[in-house]
Amino acid sequence: MKHLFKFVSVVFLSALCCIASAQNKIVVFQSDFGLKDGAVSAMKGVANGVSPDLKLYDLTHEIPAYNIWEASYRLFQTVNYWPAGTVFVSVVDPGVGTTRKSVVLKTNTGQFIVTPDNGTLTLVAEALGIAEIREIDEAVNRRKDSGKSYTFHGRDVYAYTAARLAAGVINFEQVGPALPKQVVNIPYQKAVLENGKLKGTIAILDIQYGNIWTNIGDDLVKQLNPQYGDALHVVIYHSGKKAYEGDAPYSQTFGAVAQGKPLSYLNSLLQLSFALNQASFADVHKIASGNDWSVEVSLASKK
Amino acid sequence: MKHLFKFVSVVFLSALCCIASAQNKIVVFQSDFGLKDGAVSAMKGVANGVSPDLKLYDLTHEIPAYNIWEASYRLFQTVNYWPAGTVFVSVVDPGVGTTRKSVVLKTNTGQFIVTPDNGTLTLVAEALGIAEIREIDEAVNRRKDSGKSYTFHGRDVYAYTAARLAAGVINFEQVGPALPKQVVNIPYQKAVLENGKLKGTIAILDIQYGNIWTNIGDDLVKQLNPQYGDALHVVIYHSGKKAYEGDAPYSQTFGAVAQGKPLSYLNSLLQLSFALNQASFADVHKIASGNDWSVEVSLASKK
Amino acid sequence: MKHLFKFVSVVFLSALCCIASAQNKIVVFQSDFGLKDGAVSAMKGVANGVSPDLKLYDLTHEIPAYNIWEASYRLFQTVNYWPAGTVFVSVVDPGVGTTRKSVVLKTNTGQFIVTPDNGTLTLVAEALGIAEIREIDEAVNRRKDSGKSYTFHGRDVYAYTAARLAAGVINFEQVGPALPKQVVNIPYQKAVLENGKLKGTIAILDIQYGNIWTNIGDDLVKQLNPQYGDALHVVIYHSGKKAYEGDAPYSQTFGAVAQGKPLSYLNSLLQLSFALNQASFADVHKIASGNDWSVEVSLASKK
Repeated sequence: MKHLFKFVSVVFLSALCCIASAQNKIVVFQSDFGLKDGAVSAMKGVANGVSPDLKLYDLTHEIPAYNIWEASYRLFQTVNYWPAGTVFVSVVDPGVGTTRKSVVLKTNTGQFIVTPDNGTLTLVAEALGIAEIREIDEAVNRRKDSGKSYTFHGRDVYAYTAARLAAGVINFEQVGPALPKQVVNIPYQKAVLENGKLKGTIAILDIQYGNIWTNIGDDLVKQLNPQYGDALHVVIYHSGKKAYEGDAPYSQTFGAVAQGKPLSYLNSLLQLSFALNQASFADVHKIASGNDWSVEVSLASKK
Repeated sequence: MKHLFKFVSVVFLSALCCIASAQNKIVVFQSDFGLKDGAVSAMKGVANGVSPDLKLYDLTHEIPAYNIWEASYRLFQTVNYWPAGTVFVSVVDPGVGTTRKSVVLKTNTGQFIVTPDNGTLTLVAEALGIAEIREIDEAVNRRKDSGKSYTFHGRDVYAYTAARLAAGVINFEQVGPALPKQVVNIPYQKAVLENGKLKGTIAILDIQYGNIWTNIGDDLVKQLNPQYGDALHVVIYHSGKKAYEGDAPYSQTFGAVAQGKPLSYLNSLLQLSFALNQASFADVHKIASGNDWSVEVSLASKK
Repeated sequence: MKHLFKFVSVVFLSALCCIASAQNKIVVFQSDFGLKDGAVSAMKGVANGVSPDLKLYDLTHEIPAYNIWEASYRLFQTVNYWPAGTVFVSVVDPGVGTTRKSVVLKTNTGQFIVTPDNGTLTLVAEALGIAEIREIDEAVNRRKDSGKSYTFHGRDVYAYTAARLAAGVINFEQVGPALPKQVVNIPYQKAVLENGKLKGTIAILDIQYGNIWTNIGDDLVKQLNPQYGDALHVVIYHSGKKAYEGDAPYSQTFGAVAQGKPLSYLNSLLQLSFALNQASFADVHKIASGNDWSVEVSLASKK
């Protein structure tokens, strides 16, 4: 009897332990709110009201207004550098108050993302996989007395739910009912290698420096197999029209070329990128990012 | 005897507990310093020197330089979403080193605000009420060895005092002598309903999106009693001169109107606001905020 | 025997305690990454992966791209306001992936700075002194599986090493081999008093307000010995050519002169500075900072 009881206790405690360790009290916020007003701080105040033991961090609040693609990219760029159990809140929500679903996705790597399901999950679902996805039941997961406010779900629903989940006040099941493992996707051109040409899109700008980041991964680059110092021939198209053409030596570091000169390299996410050493490729050549910007890259013929 | 002693102990411990729980180790900073230099970090370093157990957060540091009204508004927008016991520091202080008083206000909802009393407390004192207000006694509440610096009270006095108060190194009484329960007020036009017209000011812009936030609360809107879908007739004046006139359907969500179209709605503070769905009302119609911007709103006559 | 053992234990525990207390679990980040993308958050995620007990703060991430001088200045402005044991990470690294050394400097005041040794340490080494400096041994102090990424040492080496040091996972010796106590220095004009004239450079702008900060300290100003109210005659040169000339009363506070009027004062680092009360000296008179901006200051002759 005594042994059985002990065994049951251990199982019970282990279960407790696993529920407790599923979340790690860390919440990371992303939005298009900017930092000039009190919106981000109001969300963090609500989270502290749930539990002052939470550790609250920011991804960025400078997502361009309503730009769901960039919200998706920044999560893709960041989520997996945080430990399993971290709870992300992403609020880029042009459809706030309409019928888009409010969800929490758990990745196969163990992070949680609280967000409207409006395309924000496109890249992170693809890159990290969907362990589970649940719809937030606002009947229970909504800040008390917030029923009259329809335009700030970030504060009243998302920050509140994320804080309760991160603090262990609710477990993942208590978020709300499970949904099929699929998310609203933003369509985009996948990268390919065809006839010795790498083709892809300009996924995003490395905005602070003006570098060009494509969605062409190191696996495809390895198939093309450039050596450091080899010139890559780069053609960039905007809506199908040529916007830039030139050679950029494939380099391990920016310092491998003279100041102001172009280079191609694998960025910190191991995707093919173009830069000018200590200058802005995007500004100098007037390049932007998005689905209407495509790129073709081949080994420049040696003379 | 023993019982009495125990009783006294319990009372004593309860008292200790209440002093301890009056503050919650959270400090929230606001300023017009921006984030490009080391000023905010120096304040947080001083706070960590008082106690590394504090949890330090930001409201915003992008208050336009010297704009006391906006400092007041951002506190109004945020303070009450944080738990009782939170200590705010607000440093928008064009009169630093002059005779304006340095104070700590405790709201009726239990938050503390450390600030120069220069108008910064206008809206939060009105909205949350003044439980107590004390003048900072700089003879004791000033960073050691900072006597030669006259231009950075944010670091040497406010952050230092806030940290000591939040950490429980001093209690509220030890801040300094109590003052009469009044603050320096910035005069502004209160909202009214007169002859079927709501009148008020444009209190602030929802700057990231370009939405227009008035100071007309939901109680007055309820008296006018628009239904969702009813057009509101909006006239905006700048220094008494008409700057905008148009109809904006009263809506629960932005998505209720087509992209680029105007709507009126209750914002996240339940005050009447105007927006263009996914565009900037302020930019398109060149509207700003402040006392010289007034607004009149009535039910548009139905055709 | 027993006593000896006890004595040894105490010594051993004291040593443990000292190792443990050398760092304080606080990491402060500085970079030129900006806050618009996921780079800063990725660094903090890596730090949380080392230990979720760390307290992570920011100095600034708005250092102008590649501006090592400003990185150096912001550390000088800030480091010593944080407690001994704080670990700073500074990543302004135009030579990432080249042969500049990655180091950790311990100041004589007990703070640690993790950075490329590219000039970033110029001012803080001079002001606070070098207790020790060690080269980061990337064979052990590099994030697992990051070997293919050459362009984000901030995440893969610096944040990782700083977190392990701050958390006590490694002690200072385990960073890597000790180096001679010298750093790469950016040359700059030291301040002097010659023939009744203070000469120096414009070290930096107080960017949010447009104030001019020189590198002329209060010790030199004291030798010139202006009294409050005395006019200082200020001449500013750009590349040797006169850019501004005028009188600015030496003042204790900004409010000592009328709005828009010039004043000279000791800034929060006790260095001679010039400002317009509630206006931007830098904008109005088109003044910038750096080695090519020099200044001469004398007591204006009394009439």
